[in-house]
Amino acid sequence: MTKTQEIKLEPIGYVKRKTKDENVRNRSLTVQVVINPRYITALDGVEDYSHLFIIFYMHKIPKKQEPILKVHPRGRVDIPLQGIFATRTPQRPNPMGLTLVQLIERKENILVVKGLDAYDNTPVLDIKPYNHWDSVAGIKVPEWLKKLKETSS
Amino acid sequence: MTKTQEIKLEPIGYVKRKTKDENVRNRSLTVQVVINPRYITALDGVEDYSHLFIIFYMHKIPKKQEPILKVHPRGRVDIPLQGIFATRTPQRPNPMGLTLVQLIERKENILVVKGLDAYDNTPVLDIKPYNHWDSVAGIKVPEWLKKLKETSS
Repeated sequence: MTKTQEIKLEPIGYVKRKTKDENVRNRSLTVQVVINPRYITALDGVEDYSHLFIIFYMHKIPKKQEPILKVHPRGRVDIPLQGIFATRTPQRPNPMGLTLVQLIERKENILVVKGLDAYDNTPVLDIKPYNHWDSVAGIKVPEWLKKLKETSS
Repeated sequence: MTKTQEIKLEPIGYVKRKTKDENVRNRSLTVQVVINPRYITALDGVEDYSHLFIIFYMHKIPKKQEPILKVHPRGRVDIPLQGIFATRTPQRPNPMGLTLVQLIERKENILVVKGLDAYDNTPVLDIKPYNHWDSVAGIKVPEWLKKLKETSS
């Protein structure tokens, strides 16, 4: 394996929620993504998309000496332990979040989006438009995830 | 806007291609994602998914003094300039790639995947399983992208 190097990134903007104590799991809420004004023209054309990927840095996750390798998904001990790369848990070697959101409106350097499960002041690393090739039908997922889906809908 | 901080990440693994000069745009090729052995158990359960997101660091993109804010998608001057956040160009403030791949096989700390458009030795930052909520039908995309799709298929 090639020698591990350190990678340095800078936020392109921050998440701004109406209140600091909003439930971030409530995907029906609208949230602002406030982009650094230096990148304002880099947003031109984004309003032609209905959906975007937001990649963000989960700054509230404490840095661990020893990485967590397995979790019970959603903290549910009735679901067998899964490797963290088989889940979307925030407990990851690089605490990066990836969420597909609906773009409601762009106002200059602000994106108003629905479905972003990130806390107020979360640093945003990248925004990528959602294209047809990101949508795959007939996928395979684990049984435990199928059951979760059935009970939550 | 909150003061910009620096974010430090470490590769969890690297891309390994059969040859260094393979065409990375050829999505039918299979590619290895070799994960650092310290994270081997963090992969347990990943084989229950058919598709994964690979988030990687595009290490071959030269660091610019002044960021590129707009590009002609795919270098095609017949397509109007678009803000880089309205495209998937590698020219981004944080040169991160996000690609949905098909998982062919897991062999211990190696994932064999199809469709990864990353060069040999690309540092991998995260792996996230593709779930039903990542698949959205009836999305809106720009006209230029629809035309690209028609001509390439």
